[in-house]
Amino acid sequence: MKLVKAEIIAIGDELLYGQIMDTNSHWISKELDLVGVKVVRKTTVGDNRKDILDAFSEAEKKADLVLITGGLGPTQDDLTKPLLAEYFECPIQEVPEAVAAITEFFKRRGREMTPLNILQGHLPSCCEYVPNEVGTAPGMWFERNGTYWMSMPGVPHEMKKLMKDFVLPKLPQIFELPVIHHKVIKTAGIGESWLADLIKDWENALPEHIKLAYLPSLGHVKLRLTGFGTNLEQIQAEIENQIELVFPTIQKYVYGYNEESLETAIGKLLKEKGKTLALAESCSGGYITHLITTVPGSSEYLQGAVVPYHNQFKEKILGVKKETLETVGAVSEETVEQMSQGVRKLFGADFGLASSGIAGPDGGTPEKPVGTVWIACAGEGFTETKKLQLTQDRMLNIQLTGVAVLNLLRICIQKYDK
Amino acid sequence: MKLVKAEIIAIGDELLYGQIMDTNSHWISKELDLVGVKVVRKTTVGDNRKDILDAFSEAEKKADLVLITGGLGPTQDDLTKPLLAEYFECPIQEVPEAVAAITEFFKRRGREMTPLNILQGHLPSCCEYVPNEVGTAPGMWFERNGTYWMSMPGVPHEMKKLMKDFVLPKLPQIFELPVIHHKVIKTAGIGESWLADLIKDWENALPEHIKLAYLPSLGHVKLRLTGFGTNLEQIQAEIENQIELVFPTIQKYVYGYNEESLETAIGKLLKEKGKTLALAESCSGGYITHLITTVPGSSEYLQGAVVPYHNQFKEKILGVKKETLETVGAVSEETVEQMSQGVRKLFGADFGLASSGIAGPDGGTPEKPVGTVWIACAGEGFTETKKLQLTQDRMLNIQLTGVAVLNLLRICIQKYDK
Repeated sequence: MKLVKAEIIAIGDELLYGQIMDTNSHWISKELDLVGVKVVRKTTVGDNRKDILDAFSEAEKKADLVLITGGLGPTQDDLTKPLLAEYFECPIQEVPEAVAAITEFFKRRGREMTPLNILQGHLPSCCEYVPNEVGTAPGMWFERNGTYWMSMPGVPHEMKKLMKDFVLPKLPQIFELPVIHHKVIKTAGIGESWLADLIKDWENALPEHIKLAYLPSLGHVKLRLTGFGTNLEQIQAEIENQIELVFPTIQKYVYGYNEESLETAIGKLLKEKGKTLALAESCSGGYITHLITTVPGSSEYLQGAVVPYHNQFKEKILGVKKETLETVGAVSEETVEQMSQGVRKLFGADFGLASSGIAGPDGGTPEKPVGTVWIACAGEGFTETKKLQLTQDRMLNIQLTGVAVLNLLRICIQKYDK
Repeated sequence: MKLVKAEIIAIGDELLYGQIMDTNSHWISKELDLVGVKVVRKTTVGDNRKDILDAFSEAEKKADLVLITGGLGPTQDDLTKPLLAEYFECPIQEVPEAVAAITEFFKRRGREMTPLNILQGHLPSCCEYVPNEVGTAPGMWFERNGTYWMSMPGVPHEMKKLMKDFVLPKLPQIFELPVIHHKVIKTAGIGESWLADLIKDWENALPEHIKLAYLPSLGHVKLRLTGFGTNLEQIQAEIENQIELVFPTIQKYVYGYNEESLETAIGKLLKEKGKTLALAESCSGGYITHLITTVPGSSEYLQGAVVPYHNQFKEKILGVKKETLETVGAVSEETVEQMSQGVRKLFGADFGLASSGIAGPDGGTPEKPVGTVWIACAGEGFTETKKLQLTQDRMLNIQLTGVAVLNLLRICIQKYDK
């Protein structure tokens, strides 16, 4: 089997000036890696004719697949489309279907089009028009001498949609790809080196054709198992078997698999058990409620939330006792206990969650330095609390509080609601 | 003055497989941009002889300065050093000073050296040895036919130290650098092509040495002005002058400059005017409150927020009339009006903001399809509302609602609180 080689070309002055970080190339790399396509080079060039054409011809020498992002805006500094037309030696002409899609795109949003937008529906005659449902610049698919090309907008969600809907499904049709299977075990509440220590015997006994990678991210560690072979069902079965072997050791930390997020896993748990949820977020300022509401269908279990950013509202809306706030303060076990119980009552929910802490950069004291956070989960007949000692960074503290609160809820559901 | 052109080459399989995000190239870009060196291309290649040599020779054709990161580890898969020796046709030989520095590095840390580490002190004879005080792989500086080359480790803090201590101070000694100044105008509430249409006369009249770029992102468009010349004060003054010229045309959309975010800009406005804020977020589910609370010091103006995810809480907590909810429904102008007024009262805030809509993917009807969102801003003696017709994508709808609500607040503060 021939290895399929890909090149990624990112186009845009803003990427060279360092004003925008090119996250697209990284995302594309990961997706191609998952299906067994080898990225051999990534190139970033500016909005400059010669540099773009050079990148095209250098890519064609090395790659079976060339993925291009950026330079497709309606304005004059965007050169990708005319240069693709020049490179493939074909004229740009109107694609009525593309013009209609763009017109419809504007109509749906009740916005008026400019002549520049209409021109976005004019494409090189030698490309296949690929509809972009979430933006105005269409995708363009080319083929020449066995090399396939896709040009996509630089806006990340537009590029991702074109990759998922068009490019990734197309690859197995045009290339003979190796058989690879990945499965990711998602954990929270344990650090990478602790986890590695816990599973080292299992890891050392893994067969040669199954690889393990630790992918740590904020408050989570993902374990990715990758199996290589010739028969997909067999690899899948082997990986499931390995997961069964390691599961008893790490059960307490595992919240899901593959793309499942902690907030999705919790939503699933709450739906299964027919339970509801309410939140009182002080230091996390709405972040956790935001995470929960990104999940479609979360209105089934989320009743609502309060962000009582000042003490008077913790008292007035959630019923935290004045004396608690005056004696032990807002960042205390007692306060989060009362907040979680109060918000549970206010919304008539099965579970009430609360956070209160010093996110920073200001507001720290010697006793309660920046990064001190109390969290709580209240339910029928119990209130569990936990103290976190986090970082000096405000954004990190908000995010880490989010993971810890959701994980506390997960643990409480499993502990108290069997 | 000749424009100094740079290429950045990042080397390492892990960058191509998407396991590590290449943040080095982005950082280097920003630093070079600030001193007036133009990055013309960034290339990422794997640990592969031919790809690395190709990247070298292509870079030499285009660039006056080539900055290389990665591939300098002590193991055999790290090829940068032997390939630089091959490319510059000179042997690798011991540099006693470098070996001594590496020995000292291990001694200071109480760690033992391997023979491989000693070999890190052997360098191509045609390079200048550049000490790396925070790691074991030295920097290497080459010059040939007027092109300068620097090879640095891929570990970000080692690369940054070599850049700051050696490369950046060296640049003004070897190149005549232009003077460059950037300023970014940040707008919300207008699309890229509309904005381009609005300012086309001004854009066409810009002098040759001032360039304009459109940088669109979700719900925002940034306009970047870049001026080139020999005198910094003069360019800064020219750019300020151009901004003054265009400002009256786009005033209503401009919320800030350079790194300022919409939530920071609004925080500044509220602080200046000594005003406070409360939010009632239904479809945006806490996202806007989260944005606001990411800003340090936001507790000065944010009183709090409620996420009333079900009708009963819109009624119970915010005082929305039962009859409104029963007749025109939760996604209506009347409901967001009452929500914004209710939350303003609940928290005793100067401004009350509200959102209610169908984020999707479910819940749409023919009259109110997914993406229908009503937003409101209430203040002393006024309530402004706006209907948005957004996308089919839940996450996008939440984010776009966020930008629209913050922008509505900005407009209301300017309109009603002069």
